[in-house]
Amino acid sequence: MALRNALQGITCPMVTPFDDGSVDESALVDVLAHLQDGGIDAVFPCGTTGEYPSLTADEHRHVVETTVDHAEVPVIAGAGATSVDETVTAIDRAADAGADAAAIVAPYFTTANAPEGNRRFFEAIIDEASLPVLLYNIPQCTGQRIEPETVAAIVAHDNVVGIKDSSGDLEYFLSVLEGTPDEFLCLQGYDALLVPALRMGADGGINALSNVIPEVLREAFDHADDERGRELQRDAIAPLFDACTTHDFAPATKTALAERGVIPSDAVRPPLVAVDDAGREAIGDALESALAVTEQ
Amino acid sequence: MALRNALQGITCPMVTPFDDGSVDESALVDVLAHLQDGGIDAVFPCGTTGEYPSLTADEHRHVVETTVDHAEVPVIAGAGATSVDETVTAIDRAADAGADAAAIVAPYFTTANAPEGNRRFFEAIIDEASLPVLLYNIPQCTGQRIEPETVAAIVAHDNVVGIKDSSGDLEYFLSVLEGTPDEFLCLQGYDALLVPALRMGADGGINALSNVIPEVLREAFDHADDERGRELQRDAIAPLFDACTTHDFAPATKTALAERGVIPSDAVRPPLVAVDDAGREAIGDALESALAVTEQ
Amino acid sequence: MALRNALQGITCPMVTPFDDGSVDESALVDVLAHLQDGGIDAVFPCGTTGEYPSLTADEHRHVVETTVDHAEVPVIAGAGATSVDETVTAIDRAADAGADAAAIVAPYFTTANAPEGNRRFFEAIIDEASLPVLLYNIPQCTGQRIEPETVAAIVAHDNVVGIKDSSGDLEYFLSVLEGTPDEFLCLQGYDALLVPALRMGADGGINALSNVIPEVLREAFDHADDERGRELQRDAIAPLFDACTTHDFAPATKTALAERGVIPSDAVRPPLVAVDDAGREAIGDALESALAVTEQ
Amino acid sequence: MALRNALQGITCPMVTPFDDGSVDESALVDVLAHLQDGGIDAVFPCGTTGEYPSLTADEHRHVVETTVDHAEVPVIAGAGATSVDETVTAIDRAADAGADAAAIVAPYFTTANAPEGNRRFFEAIIDEASLPVLLYNIPQCTGQRIEPETVAAIVAHDNVVGIKDSSGDLEYFLSVLEGTPDEFLCLQGYDALLVPALRMGADGGINALSNVIPEVLREAFDHADDERGRELQRDAIAPLFDACTTHDFAPATKTALAERGVIPSDAVRPPLVAVDDAGREAIGDALESALAVTEQ
Repeated sequence: MALRNALQGITCPMVTPFDDGSVDESALVDVLAHLQDGGIDAVFPCGTTGEYPSLTADEHRHVVETTVDHAEVPVIAGAGATSVDETVTAIDRAADAGADAAAIVAPYFTTANAPEGNRRFFEAIIDEASLPVLLYNIPQCTGQRIEPETVAAIVAHDNVVGIKDSSGDLEYFLSVLEGTPDEFLCLQGYDALLVPALRMGADGGINALSNVIPEVLREAFDHADDERGRELQRDAIAPLFDACTTHDFAPATKTALAERGVIPSDAVRPPLVAVDDAGREAIGDALESALAVTEQ
Repeated sequence: MALRNALQGITCPMVTPFDDGSVDESALVDVLAHLQDGGIDAVFPCGTTGEYPSLTADEHRHVVETTVDHAEVPVIAGAGATSVDETVTAIDRAADAGADAAAIVAPYFTTANAPEGNRRFFEAIIDEASLPVLLYNIPQCTGQRIEPETVAAIVAHDNVVGIKDSSGDLEYFLSVLEGTPDEFLCLQGYDALLVPALRMGADGGINALSNVIPEVLREAFDHADDERGRELQRDAIAPLFDACTTHDFAPATKTALAERGVIPSDAVRPPLVAVDDAGREAIGDALESALAVTEQ
Repeated sequence: MALRNALQGITCPMVTPFDDGSVDESALVDVLAHLQDGGIDAVFPCGTTGEYPSLTADEHRHVVETTVDHAEVPVIAGAGATSVDETVTAIDRAADAGADAAAIVAPYFTTANAPEGNRRFFEAIIDEASLPVLLYNIPQCTGQRIEPETVAAIVAHDNVVGIKDSSGDLEYFLSVLEGTPDEFLCLQGYDALLVPALRMGADGGINALSNVIPEVLREAFDHADDERGRELQRDAIAPLFDACTTHDFAPATKTALAERGVIPSDAVRPPLVAVDDAGREAIGDALESALAVTEQ
Repeated sequence: MALRNALQGITCPMVTPFDDGSVDESALVDVLAHLQDGGIDAVFPCGTTGEYPSLTADEHRHVVETTVDHAEVPVIAGAGATSVDETVTAIDRAADAGADAAAIVAPYFTTANAPEGNRRFFEAIIDEASLPVLLYNIPQCTGQRIEPETVAAIVAHDNVVGIKDSSGDLEYFLSVLEGTPDEFLCLQGYDALLVPALRMGADGGINALSNVIPEVLREAFDHADDERGRELQRDAIAPLFDACTTHDFAPATKTALAERGVIPSDAVRPPLVAVDDAGREAIGDALESALAVTEQ
């Protein structure tokens, strides 16, 4: 209930700060404090921005536990994997660590040879999941989207709470929104489409930029239907998003967080590469402009 | 040495047979016997055709061990993962299980934000690898190819033996072939390009169809430069490949193996879906035609 | 002035009806009457939906002339071509025929080898254009989009009135909208995004479905910010758009027009293929549902 | 007969030199002399490398006429267009100008909504064509390939002589080669695959680089099956092709021709952009290396 309420706001897919190659627990706690100060409604550790694919199972558990220990808001833990068994295991790990829900993605590496393949994959996981499940559509990373028909078929399962869509395709998002019951939460995960999606009925947002400027995303959510919402989207969110997508999003988000003084280092793990000096300056400038909008 | 010699022939990326949802060890041993009867030079369990992404760590170990126990030829074990640490761990597991080498892929899910990202990813793995390493280029599954420049940079490392290229892009293959030293083995992994690649200097092939018709692939290898080689490519390999690619390759290969009587079941794991009856018939027909060519 | 006002509404990219392989002038006039009855603000003959690439130069002139002769609203004529000279010639033809403006697309077949290539292409045309010009972004057909930077550079030219964006990419649309002056008209050309775009500040729409249900598009435009606008988008426009995109859009639009009784035949020219019986039924059903929404 | 014989060699898709924005007839004649000195078997004016989409109808006629007037080898004229009627007209124009055959492409801008759409498009053209027709597959420019099934269906028509495939996809090429009768000529149009294709049974090549180094392409053709053929492919053709594809091919080919002293200017028309100084140097170096290989 608290989870459902929280998702109808802004959820942060948190970065995983590193120090000398290891998870920087202290910086992680600082990020969480910054987010809660900014009014965030829920947090989502170990997603794409959290560099989940670069973490070991032990690190996964550690990051989720640390987050749960310091969070005053619901925690949805990333739990994607390429097999049914490994995904179920990752969900169990998140449950043990105290998470409120788990997010799962379409199978990556192996793409289905028939539409029913993904449906069976998801259903096999959901049937064994020890936590409520959030679908997470991110075809740029998985090589395939979760078809609206697949979502519609899965919705019937009790413990599916909704979907995060990071595809950047608003037609897809609206198609899922209209093809599922009201209680199925449709959350916009592509920051550049946050306000447009909210204006068309999205339930909330799960946005990487909420790591950096949680207060802006929150205000945009509250004022989505007003001119203020459009202004925040246009003058703060879109330009910072644009500056960040020039690079990969996880490194860019860390750079922006470091520029804002929240974390000490923007180090990432291979294959990701830290933003270079020119990028750092561009992101810093965009951050400054975005904050200027909120101070108006 | 034995490994290098063997790779200069035909290596089989073996299927992983399932029985009632579990690895069918007995069928796996039967596949191995069939391959060795067919003159295969090396085997590659736990690759894409082996449904590696659907196996747990324990199953990975078990499949490699079983293969090593029954193989009279070198064993290259698939060991791809999305993080440096998990890949190194998978290689260690393969080493413990007795494999002669391990194959690694470009990071999937997370694609690099700069060319040097993949280079660092591979170098970090290679520096810690407990086995000689084979690069495995399969952009259809990983979302990115291993750039020729990246291969050229990695070649300097002692324990990299070569590359399997399954991209289907002969220009890429030739570019890698010409940009690396002679001792770096360039192996064609896209069956429809086996004979063309061999005619241009490929060192060998690692081909899913060698599961089904190992003797045909061996003969095509021996006669690549003759008219017989072109005939086998045209009349046996290409049509069967075509019949199989209509479906996903792992299910189709299992179906063909079941049709040939080598394995009892063509069951696969989600998200893969077994070939339907019409597909089974088409694959059976193509198999029969392919075998007729060899019997001439 | 009349043109600018009209574009800030709904413009129809008209079909070109055929009869026995030739342009059916009488059906074309009927379509126009149907559109004007439905409250359309402007018409756009010889665009993508008008099968412009299948028309000869003489037919182009004839269709524009006929439209101008019977139109009580401004006429924007499609005038795309692959070379500067042929495009200028097509614009001259449209001017001779009495059109108020001409729409031009990015060069198809040849894609630019550098960003400035498209800019020079457009500027060379605009400098010689005998009519005000509307940019038309449709990367699905041209193989490349008109980059926001290119649009921003072109805006300075006096006789460019705006852009029709049919990409389906709302982030692109918003980027162009925010990167150009207020007087530059940004028109949404992808029907499934009409209301979302209007809610974010789009100046109008140029939508294939306005051939079929002009009154619905007009009402959606007037009520874009209300619940009624979302309802029309969700229950009328989106489902009919979806039924049509299963086929190519020009044939599907003609089928819907024939089902509504406006034109006698849904014949198209090769390479397009007329919708089959199953498609005709699905489109007919979606049309009926769409009309039911307006009658509420 | 002369045409068929000539195509079973190396055909040059000629550049169209410009001088001060107009076709440079004198330079065109010089290119032709250079090609015939280099042993070229046939010439193909007004193709992709000839910037056909940037020429007016009058220029098309003029270039073909000039070529025919000075050619001692068969002339195949490019005659692609987006409609059946315009294509038939372009073929007539080529016939009037004295060409021996015409090359046609899949409809660009409009892609077919069903496989039979392209078949009907091609058949409608072929039925009215006043010259023998060569199919020309270049999906990078047209947005769609000519499916092997479509080729197989069209082959039955008397006046289709063969296909030029510039896709870069050798599997596609072999599929067409095996699916058509022996008398249907399969010509490799992607320079980096010339020798591999010839080794697998290609009838000839139509290659942009034959503008620059006709003698090298000819020698590669004669020695395709020898080590010399592979050497020429590897050390001359592939590196120069690689240097050129970094830019668009038409500008790069003109730059290489200017570097070799054959034409006075490498000017192109928008949207193409001339190669910059760094590119000119790289192409010049690759040209020098390629020529050094032939002088061995």
